[in-house]
Order: sequence, then C-alpha cells, then structure tokens
Amino acid sequence: MSEQERHDTRLDRFVDSYSQRTNGMRVSAVRALFAVANRPEIVSLAGGMPNIADLPLHGIAQSIAAMIEHNGAQVMQYGSGQGELGLREQILEVVALEGITAHPDDIVITAGSQQGLDLVTRIFCDPGDVILAESPSYVGAIGTFLSYQTEVVHIPGDDGGIDPVALLETTRRLRAEGKRVKFLYTIPNYNNPSGTTQSMERRREVLSVCESQGVIVVEDNPYGLLSLDADPIPAMRSIDPNVIYLGSFSKTFAPGFRVGWTLAPHGVREKLVLAQESATLCPPVFSQFAISTYLSTQDWQGQIGVFKDMYRQRRDAMLTGLEEHMPEGSTWTHPAGGFFVWATLPEGVDSQAMLPRAVDARVAYVPGPAFYADGDGARNVRLSYCFPTPERIRVGVQRFADVIRNELEVMSTFGIRVSPTRLRRAPGPSPDLT
Amino acid sequence: MSEQERHDTRLDRFVDSYSQRTNGMRVSAVRALFAVANRPEIVSLAGGMPNIADLPLHGIAQSIAAMIEHNGAQVMQYGSGQGELGLREQILEVVALEGITAHPDDIVITAGSQQGLDLVTRIFCDPGDVILAESPSYVGAIGTFLSYQTEVVHIPGDDGGIDPVALLETTRRLRAEGKRVKFLYTIPNYNNPSGTTQSMERRREVLSVCESQGVIVVEDNPYGLLSLDADPIPAMRSIDPNVIYLGSFSKTFAPGFRVGWTLAPHGVREKLVLAQESATLCPPVFSQFAISTYLSTQDWQGQIGVFKDMYRQRRDAMLTGLEEHMPEGSTWTHPAGGFFVWATLPEGVDSQAMLPRAVDARVAYVPGPAFYADGDGARNVRLSYCFPTPERIRVGVQRFADVIRNELEVMSTFGIRVSPTRLRRAPGPSPDLT
Repeated sequence: MSEQERHDTRLDRFVDSYSQRTNGMRVSAVRALFAVANRPEIVSLAGGMPNIADLPLHGIAQSIAAMIEHNGAQVMQYGSGQGELGLREQILEVVALEGITAHPDDIVITAGSQQGLDLVTRIFCDPGDVILAESPSYVGAIGTFLSYQTEVVHIPGDDGGIDPVALLETTRRLRAEGKRVKFLYTIPNYNNPSGTTQSMERRREVLSVCESQGVIVVEDNPYGLLSLDADPIPAMRSIDPNVIYLGSFSKTFAPGFRVGWTLAPHGVREKLVLAQESATLCPPVFSQFAISTYLSTQDWQGQIGVFKDMYRQRRDAMLTGLEEHMPEGSTWTHPAGGFFVWATLPEGVDSQAMLPRAVDARVAYVPGPAFYADGDGARNVRLSYCFPTPERIRVGVQRFADVIRNELEVMSTFGIRVSPTRLRRAPGPSPDLT
Repeated sequence: MSEQERHDTRLDRFVDSYSQRTNGMRVSAVRALFAVANRPEIVSLAGGMPNIADLPLHGIAQSIAAMIEHNGAQVMQYGSGQGELGLREQILEVVALEGITAHPDDIVITAGSQQGLDLVTRIFCDPGDVILAESPSYVGAIGTFLSYQTEVVHIPGDDGGIDPVALLETTRRLRAEGKRVKFLYTIPNYNNPSGTTQSMERRREVLSVCESQGVIVVEDNPYGLLSLDADPIPAMRSIDPNVIYLGSFSKTFAPGFRVGWTLAPHGVREKLVLAQESATLCPPVFSQFAISTYLSTQDWQGQIGVFKDMYRQRRDAMLTGLEEHMPEGSTWTHPAGGFFVWATLPEGVDSQAMLPRAVDARVAYVPGPAFYADGDGARNVRLSYCFPTPERIRVGVQRFADVIRNELEVMSTFGIRVSPTRLRRAPGPSPDLT
C-alpha cells in the first residue's frame, strides 16, 4: 500500500464496510479531464447531450403552468409504480412510428432509459452472469452491467451490426464453459458509439440466434426516431413481442425530465414494477405529466423533424471535415442517424494517451476503451456531432486531425510507439459520456 | 408444483432467467385490497400520501413557467450525477432547521429519499449482510433491504424508540454468530409506522452504541419538520457528522417531483454519486430546478406552518376518535408529529385477517406485519391521519373500532381465534404504503 493509499484509507472510516460491487467502482480517469473539456474555448466532440435550444419554450411554459393550475394536486402527488396510464397510452403512439404494437399494460415508465437498464439488470442478473453486447457498446450500459458484478462479453460485428455467426459461436462457447448467458444488449439503430445500424435482415438473424439459444434480447433505442437519411427500420420489438425494449424521451424531447420506458412481456413487467417501487417508489410523477402535456399540446412530431434537420447539418459537417482533414490510415463510420461517428486511428496511435494533448489543442472526444468492458478500443474514438454548431464541429475536427498528425510525426521522429493503456472504468458514466 | 403454478410458469417464458434477488420478490397480498380501498366510499387510513391541496398552485405555476421561459435549455438538459449545486446550497438552509451544519459537497440529490435508501444499500450491502432496524420499521425500507438479499433484524424498543441495551446485545450476538452487521436504519422523528420520537438523550445513547460497535447509522428523516407540538429535536446528523442522513421534499413540499437527498461523509458520497450515475445518470433535473424555484420564490417555511396546522387537526381528530371508540384491550401511540398512529389490538385479533372485513365496513388500514421483516405485528395496525379530512377520520376510526368489536364478538360467540397469518412481503410498497 502506497503512502497515498494509506492516507486515503484513513480519510474514509467506512472503507471496510462497502459491498463487493462498490469495491469494483472506479472514478473514470477521463472524468477530471472532461471538467477541463467543458471550458468554452474547447470544442467538445465528447458529450452526448442533445441540443434542445430549438424547443418551443414559450408553449411548453404556458402549457405546464396550466397543468399545475388545473391539476396541481395530482401532478405533484405520489403516482403509480408502473407510471401514469395516460402517458403510457401516448407512448404507444410514439412506438407505433417504429412499427411496434403494444398495450399500455406492457409499459413500465422509468427515470430515463438508464433506469430501465438498471432495473432489467437487477431482475435478471446474479453476479457472474454473462451479458452479451455489441463491440463497442454504450458506456453507461457497460457501467451498469458491471455494477451488478456481471461479465460483459462483446460480440464482433461489422458496419451492419452484430455478426450472427459470432453471436451463436460465442454463446455456445460461454455455455460450454458453464457460464449463464442472460441477455443480449443491443442498440440496433445508430448505435452509441459506433453509429452503425442493423438491417432488417440482420435483426431477424440476431433474433433467430437468440431465440434458438434462449438468450433474452434487450433492445435499447434512444435514437430510433432521429433517422437522418431514410425512414427508420422497424424496431426488433416489432418483429418479436418477447424483446425487452427500452425507449426514451431524452433525445426526441428533453433529457432533464428523466423519463424513459421499458416495454416487456407480462411476467417481466410485473417484476420491473416491483423493482421500480423498491428503487424509487414511483418514476417522477411531475415529469410524466409534463411530458404528457407536451405530447398533447405541442407538435412533437414536427419538433422531431426540426431536430433531424439540425442533426443532419451537424453530421454532414463532421463527415465533410473528417474527409478533408483526417490523415491516411484513419477510417470512420457514416451514421444514418443518431449522434455519433466512430473513428479508427492510424496504427500505433493510442486514443487514451492522446487525449490530454487533444485537450491542450482545444478539442475533446471520448477514447474508445470507454465502450469496451475488456480494455479494447485503444485505436478508437467516439466523436459526437449532437451539441456543437456545424462551424464549431468543423473547427473541432480540424484540430482533432492535427493532433493525430502530430502524434504520427512524434512517433516517426522518435520511433516512439505509445503503449496502449487501459482505461480504469467507472461503473457509471458522467453525463458527458451519454 | 400445483396445476396453477404450472400454468403460471408456462405463461412466463423468462421464469428460469430471473436473478435470485427477483425470486424473493412477492406481490403484496394486500395490494389488490388497496385497489378496492381507493373507492370513494371507503375511508382510507392506509395511505401515507401527504395532503398537498393547500399548496399555492398559482404562484408555483407562474414561477415554474418563468423558469422554463428563461432557463429552459438548462432545466430540461442532463445534469450532474450529484445534483444541482444551487439546490444543494438551498438544502443546507432546510437541514439547518434541524441543527445540521454541512457543506454543499456533502449532499447527493436522489429521486426521492427512497432512492437514497436504494443507493445506500447498494454501496454497503452484500447478500447476507445484516441491517438493524426499529421494531416496527418503514415498509419501503424493509422491501429495499430485502431486495438486496440482506437480513433485516429488528431491535426492540419502547415509546422512546430503540432500546440501546438491546441494540448493543443484538449487535454482539449477531457478530458472535459470524454475521456482518452493516448499518442501523432509524427514523428518530415521528417514526413510520410507530409515530414515536427518540429523545435527545436516546439519540446520543444509540449513536454511542453504534460508534463503539462500528455500526454505521442511517438516519431517515422525512417528517422531521412536521412537528405538531414542541419544536423538533435536532437530527442525529447534527450530533455526529458520520451519520448518513436521508432527507426528502415529499412531505414538506410535494412528493411528485421525486427529490430527496443524502448527506454523507466524503468517501461515502463519492460512492453514492457513482451508484447514482449507474442507476439513472442523474437525478431528475427539471424537478430539482422546480424545487429550487419553489424555495426561492414561495414562502416555504410559512407553507410548512400551514401543513402543520392541518396535520395537527387531523392527528387530534384521530386521537379523540380512538379515545372515544376503541374497545378495551387496545392501545395506541400518541405521535408528536408526522403522519401515523400505531395501534395494538386486543389479544386474539389478527390485523391481517381482519382487513377484508374492515374494507367491507368501508375503512382501510395497513396491517402490522407489513412493517416487520420477520412476520411479527399480527396484533398491530398503522393508522394514517395525513390524507382524509378530520370528519372522515372520525368516521373511519368509528368504523375501525366497530370492526374490532365485531371480531371480538365473533371470537367470544364461537370461540374462534383467528390464527395469525404471515404477510407475503413485496420488496417494495405500493405508494399507498409510504
């Protein structure tokens, strides 16, 4: 034990009292850096915050005020553990846009879809259970899964998402090793972080493998309605009603209300409600009524159209910038929706080691290892185009490319190859990482 | 396996996939009954819902509308995992009323204090760990503790709260049995369900025993500012900064925002923030700003005074009614604040078995076993005076007394002694049970 560690131990008198799951929690090594990255002179391509500046604030303010005046004693009271019936009915209209037919009883409202992830893991996973995930996968999901002491195994894929053959082989291998494979976690639309989308055919293949292996499918779809080119592909839940589907208002309306939902078969839903009551008694009631009011008084579909036009400009600015500036040996994905581009840097460049120098050069990104449970991703970065303006994105991408070029130059001049470092993972992301 | 169970198993294809903690979850046997108990002709002395009808709705509506118009892009955006700094500063003014001095950094905002319970259990407890609790204790806390596969051990007490000698002896006995005793969970002010309050001297004794035994103290104080007679007694946290303190706006403002807080020493707070990020990314942001706006624009202390006057009338109506109507052999507590009276029925009367007949007689209550992890409390009931009007409370108490009298008559006529039944516990309460 180092002097520093002894000192830290003395500071926390509870150090011997924490649970095993807590001892696995680590503060992300990049978190401190992100505090710096929020300085205005830095172009942050790191955050996953939606840009909600275009929301009709006046209309929202007036309709929520009327809701409080007319229905204050209900909207500020405790509510149902499953969530308000009226909102659950409205959610059916939202998911119908993705081809889903369901019943209001199938829906459990959650405090953001992050809580859906937490509750689904809670009801299904014991320590040591295996969760399958895309390669790479959402940092916040990986954190939650690991906090339940599960093992996250990444399934190789390609530009079309999960490789069904690898999915089958990996599941069989894990089972042969005596492991309990509980579910596949997948973001089939505009994946966070990879930006890739599974085709309809691929979805059917993945579902078929999971069905044959008795692996539950958990479909996370926060970006599904933010298609920037063609119409969205129907959700996996629209093909198979046994899929557990996580939805969110964070990207199609606003994240600050913390309202998402989980669509699940009857038996699962009943367990989720019990878990929800244990976790928070009920999901945020005022938030639910506020969103219900938004959906019934504002042109929410028109607003999604406004968001799509804005994000399309930003995506195009990023892709054009990458095309113009990135050094040879780099590749990147071309997302058809959502918020993210996933870039692979030239051989030898370590995204984690490079980050402090990028922040010095006034640009921030999330290094690839954040999106792996196993330390992979050293050559990758996630670049977000959701929050900065197109002009800032262009400046940021140019700075980013210059930083890589500088790394390559240093490597070639001094023959240094920066050794890949492994990210010390936090079980939860800072909101920068969403 | 019965025919019915085989049928249920077939219905849920996931039945073999749930985690061990989920297999311990049971739907409360009283939940179905409470759906009936919400019919308007029934006087419900069961619910723990605050009566928020007197809130200044117009002022709240106008100030929240202004907040959205002027600051919409911030109040509807993602926020900090620890909670908004401005609200944490305001919470210091609230807890100062209970003698607590702290720093904004010590506070973690939670989705209601129920989430504080969930996160504290998450960071401290492994399966098999022991949590000590009052006898009886809050149903929602017991549910959360059991959902983490802990063992809840009740410490005997009296009208003054926990018996410090029993606390010491029980802790030593459990430790001698090789058990890991993690923390004492206590509601020292106007306990839910017992209505009792610990004196300052008792608080010091309990703290001293816990200090000597290395048992963490978790103080839950949702009702602390709702003193109905004398001034509130300073919080245990005001005596010992190592106490983990759970606070809530649910009873002093409104529960629908789902905003509570946990005050904890530095090392614990850091773990709580990581757990919060894993559970929901961040506590409800809009709710936090709404409460912050309420505290800065409305006379919140005056409003607490209004609440106290209202609850005092209701408590007095209940105590007078009990005095007038209850049959011999009954006893009950005389709360100096909060929402609840805890009654002990005449010998032989089973509160659980009696409930359907009470609902028939148009009165509802919560049977005592809900407040024990070990099936105790068969002769007890929790009676809430928070929600119905004084007139309805008087009617309800009379009906309640008549039901007991009828039970006694049946027992004496037929010589039947209704056998004590054990409540099948749900890990979380329905909001009726808060």
